[in-house]
Amino acid sequence: MRGWNSLTMVHVAETLAGLRASLAPWRASQRIALVPTMGALHEGHLGLVRKARELADRVVVSIFVNPAQFAPHEDLARYPRPIENDLKLLKAERVDVVYTPSEREIYPEGFTTQISMGGPALGLESDFRPHFFGGVAIVVAKLFLQVRPDLAVFGEKDYQQLLVVRRMSKDLDLDLEIVGVPTFREADGLALSSRNAYLTPEQRRIAPALNKELRDIASRARSGTALPALEAQAAASLLSAGFERVDYVAIRAPQTLERPREITGPARVLAAAWLGKTRLIDNVEI
Amino acid sequence: MRGWNSLTMVHVAETLAGLRASLAPWRASQRIALVPTMGALHEGHLGLVRKARELADRVVVSIFVNPAQFAPHEDLARYPRPIENDLKLLKAERVDVVYTPSEREIYPEGFTTQISMGGPALGLESDFRPHFFGGVAIVVAKLFLQVRPDLAVFGEKDYQQLLVVRRMSKDLDLDLEIVGVPTFREADGLALSSRNAYLTPEQRRIAPALNKELRDIASRARSGTALPALEAQAAASLLSAGFERVDYVAIRAPQTLERPREITGPARVLAAAWLGKTRLIDNVEI
Repeated sequence: MRGWNSLTMVHVAETLAGLRASLAPWRASQRIALVPTMGALHEGHLGLVRKARELADRVVVSIFVNPAQFAPHEDLARYPRPIENDLKLLKAERVDVVYTPSEREIYPEGFTTQISMGGPALGLESDFRPHFFGGVAIVVAKLFLQVRPDLAVFGEKDYQQLLVVRRMSKDLDLDLEIVGVPTFREADGLALSSRNAYLTPEQRRIAPALNKELRDIASRARSGTALPALEAQAAASLLSAGFERVDYVAIRAPQTLERPREITGPARVLAAAWLGKTRLIDNVEI
Repeated sequence: MRGWNSLTMVHVAETLAGLRASLAPWRASQRIALVPTMGALHEGHLGLVRKARELADRVVVSIFVNPAQFAPHEDLARYPRPIENDLKLLKAERVDVVYTPSEREIYPEGFTTQISMGGPALGLESDFRPHFFGGVAIVVAKLFLQVRPDLAVFGEKDYQQLLVVRRMSKDLDLDLEIVGVPTFREADGLALSSRNAYLTPEQRRIAPALNKELRDIASRARSGTALPALEAQAAASLLSAGFERVDYVAIRAPQTLERPREITGPARVLAAAWLGKTRLIDNVEI
């Protein structure tokens, strides 16, 4: 049910009952943070764990590759699952509990409840992955309700997801703090992502162009050039750089993700583009 | 924000902050029950309150006429709202807190999260009120998350709703007990309902036929007559008795609401029918 992983000596809860038993002694007097992940941990995740450690007494990391946020044609089957290495990394970060539920623990027999959202969930990722935020919303709601943390930490790399999770938590009175952490990057600007492992050496060479184009837009956004023209130029540059396809390059209001006519206050530019079969996303502040 | 209603001296919380402040002292050591209502309280509601009082240390009754579970053409505007009388009745039952949130407290600016369900939410009521269970699910989820009760009490009169609430609570790990209470009835069998107040004396005279036909089906269900024939006969009898329209009379499995081929174990028969502009529902065990 739960116990200490023998290889790594980190406390692993595989069931909801085990998780609740682990958390019970801390519930009344200690601040509990949750870092939800799909595993295949990299320095970006570990940065979220360190932020959680900074803000809370106890840190729970969940590892669950959530089928509900993959479409049938997507990479669920090949998504990396290096669980022993993940546990070793989390042990080194002194994580208190690693929650690794089975699919049946999250979606038991007869499960039939879905969450759908408008607002920040509309457009961008939803235009290309219409199933995505429904899948994210249900699994995050369930993890929040299973763990009942005081706070949860998410990366700004999935910026639209961060806004969706914030909105859902507020709408459902989930009564926790959602902490967003700036994107961790390689030296050449590429945002850290478990999916970077799919890239060939040639694709890996091209990949930093995504962040470069976003920074370029951010620096030119107040230059007077019309925003749609800036977006189109960046998309064209990505194709020239070697990306096969650009799902979107979009300048948006930072909280609502509405399309601004011109940039007067803070803004965000977000993009998604393909290198072979690998889809990369990134965003930067304007 | 919250306080003692001056006419009735019952503790009323009008805001989520007030509600949470009221509940905080009891949270750690006392069992809290919630009875969600739309007000217009009758003996049926008070029966639910008494059951809650029996099972818990503290009883919270919410009164919120939930717009999300009414379609535009339905009776939201004319739904009865006798709040002072409701408070007086709840005071007499020694209810600890009456939660009377405004619409803005439940659905604040920018609210955009919806819950949709299959399973027990499919068919019957959903065929005629497709918006209904989405509206019920979101408001009940929110009330559960705002109050965080140990248990919640619902009437079996809204039998399909009871199954939907049970399923949702399990699916979302809401971690409370859902208690179903048998339907309270007038001496002539009519199920107690706030909507009975709409009935003219003539309609009120006809109304008990609904329960009578359901009991009749229940007594004949194991007689060998084909179930669709039994359902059709009951619908015809309701029309003869003076009902203008019958939405459904349906024999179903008691947990899944699936249509049985024949009755081998427990079953339920459910019906909805119209007297003028008033829609009545009822159900009985087979």
